[in-house]
Amino acid sequence: MYTSSLSSLQRCNLVAWQDVVAEKRRRQKAAIPNEWLIPPIEQGRTNVLDIPISCGLLSPQEAEITTTSDVYLLLGKLARGEWSAVDVTTAFCKRAVIAHQLTNCLTEIFIEEAIQRANELDDFYKKNATVVGPLHGLPISLKDQFRVKGHEASMGYVAWLGQVAEDDSALVKLLRQSGAVFYVKTNVPQTLMWGETHNNVFGRTCNPHNLAFTPAGSSGGEAALLAFHGSILGVGSDVGGSIRNPSHFCGVYGFKPSSRRVPTYGIVNSLDGQDAIATIAGPMSTSLSGIKTFMQSVLAAKPWRVDPDVIFKPWDDAGYALKEHGEGYKLCFGLIWDDGIVKPHPPVMRALECAKRALENAGHVLIDWVPHKHAELIANARSTFLADGGADYAAALISGEPMIHSMKLDADPNDIPEFRKPREPLTAYQLWQLHKERRELRKEYFDHWQATEDVTGTGRPVDAIICPVSPYAAVPHGEKRSAVYTLVWNTLDCPSLVLPVTRADSAIDTQVLPHEFRNLDDQAVYELYDPECFHGLPVGLQVVGYRGEEEATIAMAELVDAALAT
Amino acid sequence: MYTSSLSSLQRCNLVAWQDVVAEKRRRQKAAIPNEWLIPPIEQGRTNVLDIPISCGLLSPQEAEITTTSDVYLLLGKLARGEWSAVDVTTAFCKRAVIAHQLTNCLTEIFIEEAIQRANELDDFYKKNATVVGPLHGLPISLKDQFRVKGHEASMGYVAWLGQVAEDDSALVKLLRQSGAVFYVKTNVPQTLMWGETHNNVFGRTCNPHNLAFTPAGSSGGEAALLAFHGSILGVGSDVGGSIRNPSHFCGVYGFKPSSRRVPTYGIVNSLDGQDAIATIAGPMSTSLSGIKTFMQSVLAAKPWRVDPDVIFKPWDDAGYALKEHGEGYKLCFGLIWDDGIVKPHPPVMRALECAKRALENAGHVLIDWVPHKHAELIANARSTFLADGGADYAAALISGEPMIHSMKLDADPNDIPEFRKPREPLTAYQLWQLHKERRELRKEYFDHWQATEDVTGTGRPVDAIICPVSPYAAVPHGEKRSAVYTLVWNTLDCPSLVLPVTRADSAIDTQVLPHEFRNLDDQAVYELYDPECFHGLPVGLQVVGYRGEEEATIAMAELVDAALAT
Repeated sequence: MYTSSLSSLQRCNLVAWQDVVAEKRRRQKAAIPNEWLIPPIEQGRTNVLDIPISCGLLSPQEAEITTTSDVYLLLGKLARGEWSAVDVTTAFCKRAVIAHQLTNCLTEIFIEEAIQRANELDDFYKKNATVVGPLHGLPISLKDQFRVKGHEASMGYVAWLGQVAEDDSALVKLLRQSGAVFYVKTNVPQTLMWGETHNNVFGRTCNPHNLAFTPAGSSGGEAALLAFHGSILGVGSDVGGSIRNPSHFCGVYGFKPSSRRVPTYGIVNSLDGQDAIATIAGPMSTSLSGIKTFMQSVLAAKPWRVDPDVIFKPWDDAGYALKEHGEGYKLCFGLIWDDGIVKPHPPVMRALECAKRALENAGHVLIDWVPHKHAELIANARSTFLADGGADYAAALISGEPMIHSMKLDADPNDIPEFRKPREPLTAYQLWQLHKERRELRKEYFDHWQATEDVTGTGRPVDAIICPVSPYAAVPHGEKRSAVYTLVWNTLDCPSLVLPVTRADSAIDTQVLPHEFRNLDDQAVYELYDPECFHGLPVGLQVVGYRGEEEATIAMAELVDAALAT
Repeated sequence: MYTSSLSSLQRCNLVAWQDVVAEKRRRQKAAIPNEWLIPPIEQGRTNVLDIPISCGLLSPQEAEITTTSDVYLLLGKLARGEWSAVDVTTAFCKRAVIAHQLTNCLTEIFIEEAIQRANELDDFYKKNATVVGPLHGLPISLKDQFRVKGHEASMGYVAWLGQVAEDDSALVKLLRQSGAVFYVKTNVPQTLMWGETHNNVFGRTCNPHNLAFTPAGSSGGEAALLAFHGSILGVGSDVGGSIRNPSHFCGVYGFKPSSRRVPTYGIVNSLDGQDAIATIAGPMSTSLSGIKTFMQSVLAAKPWRVDPDVIFKPWDDAGYALKEHGEGYKLCFGLIWDDGIVKPHPPVMRALECAKRALENAGHVLIDWVPHKHAELIANARSTFLADGGADYAAALISGEPMIHSMKLDADPNDIPEFRKPREPLTAYQLWQLHKERRELRKEYFDHWQATEDVTGTGRPVDAIICPVSPYAAVPHGEKRSAVYTLVWNTLDCPSLVLPVTRADSAIDTQVLPHEFRNLDDQAVYELYDPECFHGLPVGLQVVGYRGEEEATIAMAELVDAALAT
């Protein structure tokens, strides 16, 4: 379906990889209209979130459009003709380009094409007095993995530059049919399998809350863009936390559904064919309404017709109405304060306290959740991801570009972290044994979950789990380690929705005394905490639902969000 | 959850495998009440289906109970108290034991326990004037793979004898909660990955329509038992045709759902951990009502709670009502006359003609289905199954029992067929490449399916496909080759329901002239046909639905069955 050809010059190594990158960067720069260039930011400035407004490039209407967080609101204005698709698209294109100049969050930029598409939608609207579909005129940003017809999807690999998609990825096709407008794709780390965002083609993406900090990864470009309101709804992907950590680090909403509900067919990927712990596509947004709108529109478009891995299951109204969860009255949440592997920082602990208090005030019950074999679940996932002994990465690095072993600003290229060192590849039979182990671990976990029926007092097992996304808020470049709080839900295949809860506050979140460290990560994370350094950064939490309960998880996250807002 | 320990004597090879088998056979024999033994059958007799009645062992009521094919009818009589659970259980136990003496279809036999369970159900019924669940008092037979607490699940491996299940498999647990009575388990081939039924522990199972013929496999014991009315509803499993070929060979109904709807957690299996083309559990029955009852009861029992691989999707009433298929009016079926790999025998071609005529008479439309890359789909599945290079089989054969290389009565143990010869094991990375290939093949196939929208005249793609189960009716022991007509739907993960259509008739199904043979299998299959030899054997067809449409597939199979009956 898709072509996949390395440019022949590069294949013969007649062109150095650095030249290929330079040429790509020139093309990327040329995609930005000159009149949208902003002056360099002043030295020493770290938080750049107010620049889109202060730089004076946006008209008052463009500022109003892009400051809108609520996707329903925006879609309503589009559907009623209050804002045209061209107005909305132009505004987000402008703001996205400003975001890019400050954080380096974009990969592909196609403004003209977006505005032309918006024009067509406006014409349709004028002619027919109705919308094309539920997403009529909505600009949607895409992680670089998603193929958009006519554009590259290099995923930051030099070798993959020049491969122009002949067709949209399945999800892109469905969103397009529903009326979406595509305008930019967003940056990722080399190999994708890293919690920060930096590669040899597009370079490093910074966190707009503090440029010295990472937006996390792998959907880091997406999160940086959303935090900037350079997008209102984006699509990321998550195999270990790649939607959730960036959402948390940048203060936006992000949702990783269970596998097989949102199409991933036709994306470019790392470790492609590794299906046991699947790469999952999901929405990221400045509002929960963006998350819900995305899931409803995708499921209304019958994704099982276009992706052979998506299950035949439409949006479940009963699930969203929490029919199996007492219709949302007196829910019981399980709270994870500490997974026993890495103890969270004070701002994260306070976020959990906020959530507990808010939910109790709203009449819900909270019990402490006992993490069951999280370390084993994580070890199984890691062994699965490393089963090829690095063959997949090696194949993608044929251009000669170096493997990135650290995301630090002053990285020593010879300092290879443990999890990136060459491993003995597994046989297919050994991989099958890992699959068996995972199945048993999952069975134990869900039995553990069902057994909470005896202690919730609701007659039901725990309705959802609330837990940290990460032990810390955003960290300086190169300091992100340990995805234990997110990866565990990939191994279990549970839906998990990240929502912003609070901000780190140096006055309240003072350092605590050291505990007995469980491992080197735990110690390093403890030592990383400095109340001043983290001050002001967003802190989110995960609302984790039972496997397959996407609709109920969204509904419960709405309850949590509402409780936190009161 | 389950113990798994080879008896230590055997582990030390202090006991020869033959002695372990002899002891097991003694135990099996002892499980049959002496008064239920029947005299040896007369020499030269091949069809033994009338013996259960003619042997005089069954009372008139037992004959009536066991002659019932319709599971609704039987459940109704149980629910109204017309027949007690003990009456029904005793009748099926008796008839199953007769079946076993004639075809060697059983592995585990536990009559006392079954009758005790039936007694408890009767007591409950008397006390509460209601049933325990939707399957109250229904005897259900199980393929040997399903663990039943307190019994072995050796799957015909000597090394696995003596391992007593400490718990039921997840499916068995759900069926038990719904009121089912378990009484026997049924025979399988060594390794399961074979289309006939023979192993070193329990020996060979014969087809009751003709003892010189195989009931196919791997759920061969189950099909032989059902054909005998020694069971009304059984559970098989299918990774390449193991429910469907035996159903077809023995003239009963069998259903392979899509993956992830019926729990398989806690079964014993071959190639365990091979999840790409999953082992699927499904019902086999003497009636379509048995198939539907099974699926409805299992899905009503919330199987996603007990099996981490089962998707969260209850029985879909709208699917069963064919809402997406014009509510069942003027359906369009795609008909596969010949998959281009192996040309079917005349009785199978005639079954297709019968179906076509019957459906056209009922107002439906039939078009010829163009098989798309069936050979590639089959090659992908075979490579996947062989990815471990035989490591899984080797581990199971540690008792010293020989690998069975042929199911022929006069097999030469040194004659190893091509697909059983040792293969180079694949690496995990190579296996991932197979997964990618499978995904692309599936995508192409479903696009091919969707594209039929333009030719059906219904405004919809083809509603279901009708195709042979196998190129032939049942074959003599050792002659089964090629599972191409069934395996393709495993690779595609489509639901497929086998229903009996006709019987081979030497007067009509005369030999046809040879065609240009496509391969050795095609030629061998052609040469195997002899109208006299196959005379009277049952012939079934598959009704294949779109991936995930279990309910619609059952509904469409009911339409086909009804059309054939008129």
